[in-house]
Amino acid sequence: MIVETKSAHFDSIALEGGGTLAPVEVAYETYGELNHARSNAILITHAFTGDAHAAGVAHDSGKPGWWDNMIGPGKAFDTDRYFVICSNVLGGCQGTTGPSSVNPATGRPYGLAFPVITIRDMVRLQKMLIDELGVGRLLCVAGGSMGGMQALEWAVSYPDAVRCVIPIATTWRHSAQQIAFNEVGRQSIMADPDWNQGEYYDTKPPARGLAVARMVGHITYMSDESMREKFGRKLREKEKFGFDFGVDFEVESYLRYRGNQFVGRFDANSYLYITKAEDYFDLTNGTGRLADAFRPVDTRFLVISFTSDWLYPSYQAQEIVRVLRRMNGDVAYCDLQSNYGHDAFLVDVAEQTELVRGFLDSTARIAVAA
Amino acid sequence: MIVETKSAHFDSIALEGGGTLAPVEVAYETYGELNHARSNAILITHAFTGDAHAAGVAHDSGKPGWWDNMIGPGKAFDTDRYFVICSNVLGGCQGTTGPSSVNPATGRPYGLAFPVITIRDMVRLQKMLIDELGVGRLLCVAGGSMGGMQALEWAVSYPDAVRCVIPIATTWRHSAQQIAFNEVGRQSIMADPDWNQGEYYDTKPPARGLAVARMVGHITYMSDESMREKFGRKLREKEKFGFDFGVDFEVESYLRYRGNQFVGRFDANSYLYITKAEDYFDLTNGTGRLADAFRPVDTRFLVISFTSDWLYPSYQAQEIVRVLRRMNGDVAYCDLQSNYGHDAFLVDVAEQTELVRGFLDSTARIAVAA
Repeated sequence: MIVETKSAHFDSIALEGGGTLAPVEVAYETYGELNHARSNAILITHAFTGDAHAAGVAHDSGKPGWWDNMIGPGKAFDTDRYFVICSNVLGGCQGTTGPSSVNPATGRPYGLAFPVITIRDMVRLQKMLIDELGVGRLLCVAGGSMGGMQALEWAVSYPDAVRCVIPIATTWRHSAQQIAFNEVGRQSIMADPDWNQGEYYDTKPPARGLAVARMVGHITYMSDESMREKFGRKLREKEKFGFDFGVDFEVESYLRYRGNQFVGRFDANSYLYITKAEDYFDLTNGTGRLADAFRPVDTRFLVISFTSDWLYPSYQAQEIVRVLRRMNGDVAYCDLQSNYGHDAFLVDVAEQTELVRGFLDSTARIAVAA
Repeated sequence: MIVETKSAHFDSIALEGGGTLAPVEVAYETYGELNHARSNAILITHAFTGDAHAAGVAHDSGKPGWWDNMIGPGKAFDTDRYFVICSNVLGGCQGTTGPSSVNPATGRPYGLAFPVITIRDMVRLQKMLIDELGVGRLLCVAGGSMGGMQALEWAVSYPDAVRCVIPIATTWRHSAQQIAFNEVGRQSIMADPDWNQGEYYDTKPPARGLAVARMVGHITYMSDESMREKFGRKLREKEKFGFDFGVDFEVESYLRYRGNQFVGRFDANSYLYITKAEDYFDLTNGTGRLADAFRPVDTRFLVISFTSDWLYPSYQAQEIVRVLRRMNGDVAYCDLQSNYGHDAFLVDVAEQTELVRGFLDSTARIAVAA
């Protein structure tokens, strides 16, 4: 399945924080075919540093999509049966308008002149794209981590436009610890002199700060156990006491590699804006009354968490499930056994596949019956 | 109890990695009186960024010691009964020789010319101090976190010189995750251009990198729950969308404050050397055979962990306890219920006090009977 990223153009989008962003480009990919009834469309929402290339092999780079193990013919999101869409989020740096895009007012990249964006804004732009593509009601919105926040926001903002949502390894609002980890990443970027108040597009990006931020991220994506299994205390080939604060342990080498690799593919200002959007996200707008947010609840939910995910711990998913059950909502929940930590939704897909396949199938049958 | 930090001088110390460091100063404090039998001395070993000022009120600064709630008349380490000693570790920056000390070969601070040091080296220097103070056999060595590593190392390196050890919230070797968190701190410091390969003593320290490193540390010292209780999602007084990547949430403000405060009291090169000593620490020297390390086991152990400590999780303490029990060692263990995470050993002292008090008392009685 060779795929190509396409682009949609919109004159403007109104933002939750007030004001308007104009114009807006959206990078997206689609897999499978929209049926005549326009009833088989599924929107996949990506995590923090993800992009529109969710499945298949990219035409230009040859790279597989980030959820290729879940999306494709015969897979969980079966492209023989469903029309699957994935778009890069607002504020991103991989084809959708973000702080590295050109500000028409100045002819130069926005930098910090880019407006505040929220998860709700990301979802609003997705709704515009869905309408543009001629899809009526989505069969499903599904995603993990920040993608799960978007799935939840869809159920709240556009309950009539989506039959079911699958929020995975996610939360209805960030805890103090989740905010704290994001803040460390932001501080690391902003501490790098090359960041230069976000004005680095003509010079060099804050590579060191961004790499450290990514290293922190990677630790939180794995579990204590998965790190032990993958690295243990394995030493690099190096005299133990040949000491230059270089790499002694495999885990150090891995983190440095992933940190530096990230610099080449992600924009530091997008890092700042998107993590703030995550931290601001609160499905209840600060009231803490989740039942009010979901009322009326017509959408079906499949909520998934993973036992070893300590960044988005299972209790956060269970808070959502408890409220939905109390409201007699149509909600299925599974806390999947995995050692992979938060990364589990990307890598540990066998059980997840069975859950998603069955849930989509039953939702599609209900949709036909309705 | 007004206390003053004293200093001991040694001509040189031989290091585990080979070579010698000369000369060596050790900052230390003592509380209470050594008895005639010289049998009531307790060594307190400090955590990563701790210092010799463990108890009482400092003569010059007026500050209480870092474990003042545990050490003093009538407290867990009862200074009416015991002679308590605490010294700053080798490689530190608070009175004991470390990378910020003057290198006699150059007349300038060591910087990266300082030799690699290990937990075993720290303990060797403590042994030299204990001998200098005329203490025969220590009644006890007790400490939390890196202080607990030193307590364990005492039982292995000098089993005849210590009757009991109390390792708290610690491990017999760092896991991949623990190494990873330390590595992020090191990378953050070394990414700061002001670090300048450790040569910053004539200019300015890598304040931004060191502050970010400390922020990461603080997250790992608290638990998800204690952060939620302390900060929740409380907002600072600030228009939500007045957006400058400034502080929105209380937790951000706290982390920035603690990060910046740390810069004034800690040396960045000490941060690098001491975290490496933690990461290298392996009581089994790489064999993984803990029973061999403890053989012969004559020392009594009181091992303490805390339920919400995810940086030094309870299973690591339990690995030690299991091996000691299999060897018929004299070991008491308690996994104390606490919400404070790793910080619990510093702040949640009620139950800890009862455990320590009883354990010291019984050890002292055994010592008298012997």
